Amino acid sequence: MVKATIVNSFFKNYGPFPINEILKLLKINYNKIYNQNVNDVKDLLSSKENDITFFHSKKYKDLASKTKASFCITTNGLKNNLPKNCTPLIVENVLFAISSVTAKFYPDSVDDCFDDTVIEIIKSDYKDKVKFGKNVLIGKNVLIGSNCLIGHNTIIEKNVSIGNNCSIGSNSIIRNTLIGSHVKILDNCVIGKHGFGFFPNNGKNLRYPHIGMVQIDDNCEIGCGATIDRGSISNTVIGKNTFLDNQIHIAHNVKIGANTIIAGQVGIAGSSSLGKNVKIGGQAGISGHLKIGDNVEIAGGSGVIKDIPNNSKVMGYPAKNIRQFIKENK
Amino acid sequence: MVKATIVNSFFKNYGPFPINEILKLLKINYNKIYNQNVNDVKDLLSSKENDITFFHSKKYKDLASKTKASFCITTNGLKNNLPKNCTPLIVENVLFAISSVTAKFYPDSVDDCFDDTVIEIIKSDYKDKVKFGKNVLIGKNVLIGSNCLIGHNTIIEKNVSIGNNCSIGSNSIIRNTLIGSHVKILDNCVIGKHGFGFFPNNGKNLRYPHIGMVQIDDNCEIGCGATIDRGSISNTVIGKNTFLDNQIHIAHNVKIGANTIIAGQVGIAGSSSLGKNVKIGGQAGISGHLKIGDNVEIAGGSGVIKDIPNNSKVMGYPAKNIRQFIKENK
Amino acid sequence: MVKATIVNSFFKNYGPFPINEILKLLKINYNKIYNQNVNDVKDLLSSKENDITFFHSKKYKDLASKTKASFCITTNGLKNNLPKNCTPLIVENVLFAISSVTAKFYPDSVDDCFDDTVIEIIKSDYKDKVKFGKNVLIGKNVLIGSNCLIGHNTIIEKNVSIGNNCSIGSNSIIRNTLIGSHVKILDNCVIGKHGFGFFPNNGKNLRYPHIGMVQIDDNCEIGCGATIDRGSISNTVIGKNTFLDNQIHIAHNVKIGANTIIAGQVGIAGSSSLGKNVKIGGQAGISGHLKIGDNVEIAGGSGVIKDIPNNSKVMGYPAKNIRQFIKENK
Repeated sequence: MVKATIVNSFFKNYGPFPINEILKLLKINYNKIYNQNVNDVKDLLSSKENDITFFHSKKYKDLASKTKASFCITTNGLKNNLPKNCTPLIVENVLFAISSVTAKFYPDSVDDCFDDTVIEIIKSDYKDKVKFGKNVLIGKNVLIGSNCLIGHNTIIEKNVSIGNNCSIGSNSIIRNTLIGSHVKILDNCVIGKHGFGFFPNNGKNLRYPHIGMVQIDDNCEIGCGATIDRGSISNTVIGKNTFLDNQIHIAHNVKIGANTIIAGQVGIAGSSSLGKNVKIGGQAGISGHLKIGDNVEIAGGSGVIKDIPNNSKVMGYPAKNIRQFIKENK
Repeated sequence: MVKATIVNSFFKNYGPFPINEILKLLKINYNKIYNQNVNDVKDLLSSKENDITFFHSKKYKDLASKTKASFCITTNGLKNNLPKNCTPLIVENVLFAISSVTAKFYPDSVDDCFDDTVIEIIKSDYKDKVKFGKNVLIGKNVLIGSNCLIGHNTIIEKNVSIGNNCSIGSNSIIRNTLIGSHVKILDNCVIGKHGFGFFPNNGKNLRYPHIGMVQIDDNCEIGCGATIDRGSISNTVIGKNTFLDNQIHIAHNVKIGANTIIAGQVGIAGSSSLGKNVKIGGQAGISGHLKIGDNVEIAGGSGVIKDIPNNSKVMGYPAKNIRQFIKENK
Repeated sequence: MVKATIVNSFFKNYGPFPINEILKLLKINYNKIYNQNVNDVKDLLSSKENDITFFHSKKYKDLASKTKASFCITTNGLKNNLPKNCTPLIVENVLFAISSVTAKFYPDSVDDCFDDTVIEIIKSDYKDKVKFGKNVLIGKNVLIGSNCLIGHNTIIEKNVSIGNNCSIGSNSIIRNTLIGSHVKILDNCVIGKHGFGFFPNNGKNLRYPHIGMVQIDDNCEIGCGATIDRGSISNTVIGKNTFLDNQIHIAHNVKIGANTIIAGQVGIAGSSSLGKNVKIGGQAGISGHLKIGDNVEIAGGSGVIKDIPNNSKVMGYPAKNIRQFIKENK
């Protein structure tokens, strides 16, 4: 999750906030009184001086040792990996704490209610620049390039950038999304909504803020009925010339490389990354937080629950080498 | 199916009907001539005097022995479990017979054509009480609490009750549904349509009537693209604070307990019940008529084909103890 | 794919074209100068004199030996199966070549942008003949029989024929589709879009033209959220009285027999054919180019990767005899 650079141009940052306000939010008492402002919440890699970051797993200790953040939410066991410029803020649950802080800086990123900033495209500046169907709605902070089509009843909600020569189908809903050029998005898609991230809590779960975006690169095609959730801290990325068939679900923070082909009804769980030239058969599922290499082929119906190295062909549930699977299942 | 109490406030009961009419419908000849009206069709538990019920499996013999119904559609082999107050009506196919009788009492529950009672919300009593998007439609017998949001192009068809502080997304369609407070329903959902219940018949299948509702309790979240079918005789229930990710299918009569978390693309077949605090990974499937206990964890991609006791963790297809599965699949 | 007769009444044939133009397109140099027009692109079986066809697999050598086409795109290894009346056109990649030729004859079949020919139904000839909801749109070349219903926000795009007594739900999109009588199509469906067929090409994939249709026969029911893609050369067919549950994906060229029942979230990959009276449980997947016989039962969650003979019951992934599967998985 913290590997990719944070690029957050869409949600309003309500900061800076004095560090004391943040300490109060986290219920941390420090003897020393800080008189410092915190500018932003970022990951270990992209933080700058006066930012706050978080560090919750040994996996990221190299990144942690070089962070430029002034403050880092972490645990007692991890704090010694941080450099001198970075003051550790010790909590029990790092993800819960960073979620609270992110929600303080970006309160608009927590809930996804319908966008009430939209207007009919026919009343917008795009009425002569875009070819559009009936009942198309356009929100605030939307940029659309030349030679684009938008189908009937489609809602381009706030914070969407669309390149040139794109074709958006009908009945689709898009928000918080960067779309390249020559991209096709078919009908009934929902792209850019918050992911399925929250802290379970009996009686009332607490939603994790999602300040990332969806990024869909040039020449991609997204099939009918897709749901592609935006990232929590980093972006959800669909690489160049990647084609998705119908009814696919891509969860938050997933990164998919270029020239990848994904057949119908596939689901990819949160924060997994796929290399380039990957081929995935219909109905396959990929668990969260996995790394799938370049040129990997995953047979239809497979369930992938561990990392897959470059150039592998896998099949089965759990997915294993395809030859071994076929041999065992004659 | 017959365990839950029938609460049917939505479909019009065209009864009472003389028992003789019902006997004719079922092609039953009794010597004794009845001169009695039948008020309603209910399950074994909730039937009262002058109601008709059905009893088709030994599993329900305890309930059958205590039913207060005056008539019960059943088989020769089961009829002796019924109490004296209840006259058995012997048929070959109990479900087919009860379906015919239900359709007689509730003819409006058989087909689900589009709701032509809807009007634009802006022309309704809710125009100042609800915050709504473009092209929102509202049917008859709709109640909406305070501080609710309804997104663009959403259709609240007839027979829907929505509590306070709810957020409904865009492009969703809801009918025959009871929604609590603080509930979020995201985009492109279809909730409250009849289930996939019918009697196969070469040339023309016969649809089973669906007189149940969908009930979604407080603090739930329903992800994009969900389909939640209403119950046939009882309700389909989503318990308090249960969260569903995108592209989930919940079939008729399913009951889901509180604080349950269900990841993307999961499907739950008809009449299965889940306890509370259940966690289900992405793309898992649960067969029909199963009982899943409290605190059960089902790994993503699993296929559950038998009951699962409380506090179990399962994985695989067919789903089994997760440790055993992992051991066998190293 | 080539077994079914091509019936293409919908896409405009821009031919005839001189064979020399086609040879140039395929980069074929022949000594002999042809002075002949080619009328149409068809499969081996339905081609007539002055048509062009293709032959890419030994499986079809019997059909090839009897084709009436004047030209056939094929390989050196296969050309000797063709009759004397048919001039072989030798290429490296038969499918790529026939795709280019099809795109030349039927350029409108390559891309599926939104249909800008639609008008509001209330302004169409159907305003008094059909019962319809709000915001219904109707394209060119649409025929609708008597006593039909069309729900809110539904778009009947160009090239659709609907029989009598049909009920179409809300928020659905249909194009290039032949619908029989007494058919129900529920909400949020997308029917008749091009299939997921293209030639992978780093940087920019090349789309395969789809000149087929979707054919849905009498008494069928299509559940909510279905995607049914039209065929590439032949049609995608849903046989009489076949019922599909919610969230089902049917890929291009699939043929499904009569009286078949398919539960929720099933996916059927391209060009597979199913017999009649087939029953498929929820979330099952069927790979492409398979032949599933009559009266086959496929358990929920199964993954079918080879042909299945008539009257079989299968389960598992890969799907095998159900008794064997249950025995092995006790």
